[in-house]
Amino acid sequence: MAQSHTSIHEMLKDTPTLNESNSAIHSGTEPRLKHPNSLALNNISAPATPTNSLASPLGDSSFIKSGAAKIDTLKNWSISTYKCTRQIMLEKLGKSSRTIDSELEAQIEQLRDTQRKYLQILRLTRALSSHFHHVVQTNRMLSEAFSDLAQKSPELQEEFMYNSDTQRSLTKNGELLLNALNFFTSSINTLCNKTIEDTLITIRQYETARIEYDAYRMDLENAKPEPTSPTVSAESQKNYDKHKENYEKLRADITVKMQFLDENRIKVMHKQLVLLHNAVAAYFSGNAVALEGTLKQFNIKTPNSASGSWLEQ
Amino acid sequence: MAQSHTSIHEMLKDTPTLNESNSAIHSGTEPRLKHPNSLALNNISAPATPTNSLASPLGDSSFIKSGAAKIDTLKNWSISTYKCTRQIMLEKLGKSSRTIDSELEAQIEQLRDTQRKYLQILRLTRALSSHFHHVVQTNRMLSEAFSDLAQKSPELQEEFMYNSDTQRSLTKNGELLLNALNFFTSSINTLCNKTIEDTLITIRQYETARIEYDAYRMDLENAKPEPTSPTVSAESQKNYDKHKENYEKLRADITVKMQFLDENRIKVMHKQLVLLHNAVAAYFSGNAVALEGTLKQFNIKTPNSASGSWLEQ
Repeated sequence: MAQSHTSIHEMLKDTPTLNESNSAIHSGTEPRLKHPNSLALNNISAPATPTNSLASPLGDSSFIKSGAAKIDTLKNWSISTYKCTRQIMLEKLGKSSRTIDSELEAQIEQLRDTQRKYLQILRLTRALSSHFHHVVQTNRMLSEAFSDLAQKSPELQEEFMYNSDTQRSLTKNGELLLNALNFFTSSINTLCNKTIEDTLITIRQYETARIEYDAYRMDLENAKPEPTSPTVSAESQKNYDKHKENYEKLRADITVKMQFLDENRIKVMHKQLVLLHNAVAAYFSGNAVALEGTLKQFNIKTPNSASGSWLEQ
Repeated sequence: MAQSHTSIHEMLKDTPTLNESNSAIHSGTEPRLKHPNSLALNNISAPATPTNSLASPLGDSSFIKSGAAKIDTLKNWSISTYKCTRQIMLEKLGKSSRTIDSELEAQIEQLRDTQRKYLQILRLTRALSSHFHHVVQTNRMLSEAFSDLAQKSPELQEEFMYNSDTQRSLTKNGELLLNALNFFTSSINTLCNKTIEDTLITIRQYETARIEYDAYRMDLENAKPEPTSPTVSAESQKNYDKHKENYEKLRADITVKMQFLDENRIKVMHKQLVLLHNAVAAYFSGNAVALEGTLKQFNIKTPNSASGSWLEQ
C-alpha cells in the first residue's frame, strides 16, 4: 500500500503542464467532497490548484485540440488520483473496506521476501568476490616476492620456491574462481533487478488497480442510497465495471507472471547454485581441472579466452 | 654513513643540560680548528654554544662533583662529535681516506637487503591475512544466508544446503589458516623488527666507531709532521689506539653477531616457510585434517584452544 501511495505521488510529477488545465477538472471531484471523512484530504488535493493559472489561452486550433486531449487526460487522472488518495487514506484510517485476495497477497509478499533474500545473497557474493579479488592480487605479488627471494637466497631456495609455486597456482585458479563468482553475481543481479523487478512492476500496477477498483466500488455503494440521481448511479456503475475489469485483468496477469517467474527463478537459481558450489568446491579442494571443467560447463569465459583475439598479441 | 650522521645528531639531543657546561670544553676542540677544510664545520659546531650560559654557578659541592663528571662527559662527547662530523664531511667531500672492509660491508649491505625483502614479505602476508579475514567473514555470513534460504525454499533446499555447508566448512578451515598466517607474520615480524634490527643497531655502533677511528687516525697522520709538539702527538697516538681498539672490538662483535643471526634467520625462515606452504597447501586442497595437523606441528593455538578456559564458559 505504501508503494501505491508513492506511485501516485510520482504520477503527480508526470502531469501535463499547468497552463493547459481547465476548470472542468472540478466537475468530477467537487460534488463528492460531501464525504464526512474527507478532513485529511483537503490538503492532499493538490491536483485542483492548476485552475488558478488558466487565465491566458495560448494557442492555435491544433494546439487547442491537443490541449483538449490533454485536459481530458488530466481530468481523468485528477478524478482517479483523488479517488485513490481518498481510498488509501480511508483504508489507513480503517474506515473503508478493501478487496482482499489472501492467497495472491501471500504470494506477492513471498516474492518480495524472496527478492530481499536474493539481494542479500547478491550483496554477500559481491563482497566475497571483491575480498577474494584482493586475495588473488596478493597471491600474485607474494608469488613474485618469493620467486625473487628464491633466486637470491641459495640457503632457502627450495622453501621460497615451494611457496612461490603455491601462490602462483592460487593466483591462476583464483582468477578462474573469480570468473565463476562474477558469473554468479551477474546472473543473480539479472534475476533480482530485472526478472523479479519486472513482475513487481506489474504487481504495483495491480495494487494501484485494486485501490482504484475499491475506490469506485465504494463510490457505487455510497451512490446507491440516492435513487433521486440515477445518472450519477449509472456513471458510478460504469466506472465500477471498467475498474473491476482492469483489476481482474491485472490480477490474472500477475498470477500468470508469478507462475512463470517462479519456474524461471527455480531454473536460474538451480543452475547458479550448482555452479557456485561446484566452482567453490573445486577451487578449495585444489582441483584445477574440475574448476576449469565447471567453467566450461557453464560457458564462462576464462581470463585467457577473454583476453582478446590473437590479433592483439 | 648517512645513518652514522643521523645518530650523531641524535646524540646531540642526549647532551647534559646546558647550565652545567664549562668553558673547558673548548680546550680540546679549538686548537684543532686550524684544519684547512673546516669551512663547512663552522656552522655545525653546535656543541660550542652552551658556553654562553655558564654565568651563574648554581650548586653545592655534590652538585659540583656531579657537574664536573658531566662536564667531563660533555667534553669528551664534544671532541668526539666534532671529529666525527669533520670526518663525515671530509669523506663526503672526498678529502679524507676511510677504512674499508669490503667483505664486511658487503655482508652488511646484504643483511639490510634481506631485512628489506623480508619486510616486503611481511607486508604482503599481512595484507593476505587481512583480505583473507574478510573472505572468511563473508563465508560465515553466506553460510547463514544460504542456510536460512534452505529452510524457507523447499524447491531449492538441496542446492542452498550444499552451498551453506561448503561456506561453513570454508569458514572453519579459513579460521585455522588465519591462525597459521598470523603465526607466520608474527614470527617474521620478530625476525625483521627485533632479531635483525638488534644486529643492525650494533652495526650502526660499528659504523660510528669506524668514523671515530678514521677521525683519530687522520688526526694522528696530520700530527706527525709536527715533531715540535710531542705531547699532542702522544695524545693523538693514545686516542688513535683507543678508537682503533673500539673499532676492532665492534668489528669482531658484528662479525660474530651476523654469523649467529644468519644461522638463526635460516632456521626461523625454514620453519616459517614450511609452515606457510603446508598450511596454505592443506587449506587450498580442502585437506582440513592436514591443516589441523600443520597447526599442531607448529604449536599454533586454534580458535577453540584460544577461546579461554572452561571457567569463562
